[in-house]
Amino acid sequence: MTQIDVSPISGFPEWLPDKRIVEQRILDVIRQSYELFGFAPIETPSVERWPVLTAKGGIQRQVFSVGRPSVEETTEQELGLHFDLTVPLARYVASRSSELTFPFRRYQIQKVWRGERAQRGRFREFYQCDIDIIGSETLDLLYDAEIARVIGVVFDTLGVSGIKVHISNRKILTSLASAFQVDSSSTETILRLIDKASRDGATAAAALLREEGFDTDLADAFERLLDASDLATARAVLVGAGADVTGMDELEQVHDAALALGMPANQIEVDLGIARGLDYYTGTVYETFVTGHETWGSVCSGGRYEDLAGYFTDRRLPGVGVSIGATRLLDLLTQSEIMPLGAKTPTKVLVATQDRANYLPRYLEFAASLRGAGIASEVYLQPRKLGDQLRYAGDLGIPLVLIAGSAELSRDSIQLRNMNDGEQTELPIADLVREAERLLRSLDPDDR
Amino acid sequence: MTQIDVSPISGFPEWLPDKRIVEQRILDVIRQSYELFGFAPIETPSVERWPVLTAKGGIQRQVFSVGRPSVEETTEQELGLHFDLTVPLARYVASRSSELTFPFRRYQIQKVWRGERAQRGRFREFYQCDIDIIGSETLDLLYDAEIARVIGVVFDTLGVSGIKVHISNRKILTSLASAFQVDSSSTETILRLIDKASRDGATAAAALLREEGFDTDLADAFERLLDASDLATARAVLVGAGADVTGMDELEQVHDAALALGMPANQIEVDLGIARGLDYYTGTVYETFVTGHETWGSVCSGGRYEDLAGYFTDRRLPGVGVSIGATRLLDLLTQSEIMPLGAKTPTKVLVATQDRANYLPRYLEFAASLRGAGIASEVYLQPRKLGDQLRYAGDLGIPLVLIAGSAELSRDSIQLRNMNDGEQTELPIADLVREAERLLRSLDPDDR
Repeated sequence: MTQIDVSPISGFPEWLPDKRIVEQRILDVIRQSYELFGFAPIETPSVERWPVLTAKGGIQRQVFSVGRPSVEETTEQELGLHFDLTVPLARYVASRSSELTFPFRRYQIQKVWRGERAQRGRFREFYQCDIDIIGSETLDLLYDAEIARVIGVVFDTLGVSGIKVHISNRKILTSLASAFQVDSSSTETILRLIDKASRDGATAAAALLREEGFDTDLADAFERLLDASDLATARAVLVGAGADVTGMDELEQVHDAALALGMPANQIEVDLGIARGLDYYTGTVYETFVTGHETWGSVCSGGRYEDLAGYFTDRRLPGVGVSIGATRLLDLLTQSEIMPLGAKTPTKVLVATQDRANYLPRYLEFAASLRGAGIASEVYLQPRKLGDQLRYAGDLGIPLVLIAGSAELSRDSIQLRNMNDGEQTELPIADLVREAERLLRSLDPDDR
Repeated sequence: MTQIDVSPISGFPEWLPDKRIVEQRILDVIRQSYELFGFAPIETPSVERWPVLTAKGGIQRQVFSVGRPSVEETTEQELGLHFDLTVPLARYVASRSSELTFPFRRYQIQKVWRGERAQRGRFREFYQCDIDIIGSETLDLLYDAEIARVIGVVFDTLGVSGIKVHISNRKILTSLASAFQVDSSSTETILRLIDKASRDGATAAAALLREEGFDTDLADAFERLLDASDLATARAVLVGAGADVTGMDELEQVHDAALALGMPANQIEVDLGIARGLDYYTGTVYETFVTGHETWGSVCSGGRYEDLAGYFTDRRLPGVGVSIGATRLLDLLTQSEIMPLGAKTPTKVLVATQDRANYLPRYLEFAASLRGAGIASEVYLQPRKLGDQLRYAGDLGIPLVLIAGSAELSRDSIQLRNMNDGEQTELPIADLVREAERLLRSLDPDDR
């Protein structure tokens, strides 16, 4: 028979069940944390109209187009797959603003698609997990602090003990540039260069600025700013250059409020080198690093924007939000063994079958009573030897196997085999659920 | 500023948060039920290679093509969005069969896309929730019964009290056709006509067969078969026509085993009129109807197939599975008020803020202690009057508001306002969590 190419498509990840189970756990924790802070779920279609996707320009090359079949109405506009969740949010809020209550706190966990050239670590399809808080006309700066706090809670709940949320305020870099009478296009260049070089230190960033033809005075000022060891020193650099200090005021407020919100001081760090040059943020900006795994880059980034949906509505909608790239995070957490791969199935108890002709109803009853207690269970229904059934459980990482032949059943008992150590205990049928719960708790104290 | 068309795209549904919350509840229940029966999660990319999607032919018109941006490698094949989860499953199992353990029990909950002409009740993007059990070379018929049982449990857990799983076996109709020396193309026509007419009764189906030029003898036999009030009568029709009774044997076995698996007798019904003519099933077939809402059509359908992935691998992979169309189910359950729309946010307690300058840290503490007990809470951080904050809670359907001004705080107490009846109670801060839990339980006994 003709066989068709079934190999993976580059950039489109697909996992075996053990990895998908970890991915689901990550997505579940993120969702639960978002909901605990009162973010409401929305989901937008995977496709948007082309003019919506490209309203801000610059990303056209990254958009996958979606073609309609030949039977199509021809009046419709071209469509594309969304490449982030912010553009769809802007379109959603603009089109439904009269039906929403502001501040609108929403989370959105969906796949996005980017038509990038496939390369190591770059996905063309991946999960984003976004939260944003959108105000109507105004939005208090305290929400910027709350967003930082939510990031901390998400990673705490994931069991990632060491993370650091780096925060800055984009106005600091732009006001310093303005103080040197730099035009807006050059300001963007400066931000892009700082974004690129600041991980290597203030000196490297300043050198790059000089290399690209910026004044020595300007480069020196940026070097002193990025080199500042505390906020007072940084503020002095701005004041010395005659620059506006609004960004500095906001940054201090957000930082202090995040601590007041319960954020541990070692989870948040002012980092004036964050520029997020290519984005449209206008105030607070965030990047998040997992301690010891900083080379993976930021696992959660975002910021404050003056106006979410200017292309789609006249209503002014300031907002603040962040996005977790969950697919890359999955790779980080599994490869670092922070969340190692485990079982290949949710099944906790496999009910083995022996004399099916006589005892099938009993086996089905055992599984039903386990499920009644919330214990995922399956009955092995192929006519195979017990050894094969045990091998099946072992291959899948099922922790317990229930074995009951005519001997046990005649005594109203069953055997429970702990697949971890091979130990097998006979117990009365009446104790099944209690004993299974006890064994499962002892095998995985965090579970359930 | 130029404004871009932000109206919905026909056929691509998008909900406000209240409806998305119900949709999530439906998807959660389906997932939990599937996991309780030991189905393992997988997810496949939204796109597949064109030859994979069209291997079985016939659905090309329904496939949305996906175009790569201009910077693309030209060596890649064309891509399209998957239109179901069965074709991706076949490709997945074929390409990974050496890494999987059989029988492979998987569930998959994802969006699928169909480029149908948009019309009322037809979605172009919608959720499918599939389970399948795939054997290697063989798969016991008992698994067909288990699938029926899982459908029952899913709908019970959703709180849909009256459902009926209609089952049949495709071999029954095909063997009767064979007994009349009908060729395979005419057999397909017969199945398609029966699929279309059998809801209107045996007489209508037989009339349609005659109308389309089939023999009176043949039409009469099908009429007697579809009219049979019990399995013995139906079997007699087959025997009388000299037809093979394998399908009848299998159907009886699956029906009896489903009852043995604990399926209530009123949840399952033999219905020989199910043909699922355009599908590739070869044995058991299922359709599921919500009692009193039969006009919505089947909410969960599927069947047994001899060989899942013949186009992709030489390994014989028989399987059985069903799919729930969750987006249409959402419309059915909300419109029928079986699952009415409720709150627009997960927030259970809004912490109102009054004298933020003095008391913000206290408000944040209250929210943190509620969250610590798993109660979704948010602090209102805009500088607004209490009346505005209560209106915000009312608009969103937040059940409780915590109010604490200087008077209450000086007494170490707070007020909890029940937004349902407007009743407001003062209580000691130390009792906050316990009292919030009690009130929430009283408002929604099923919750949490």
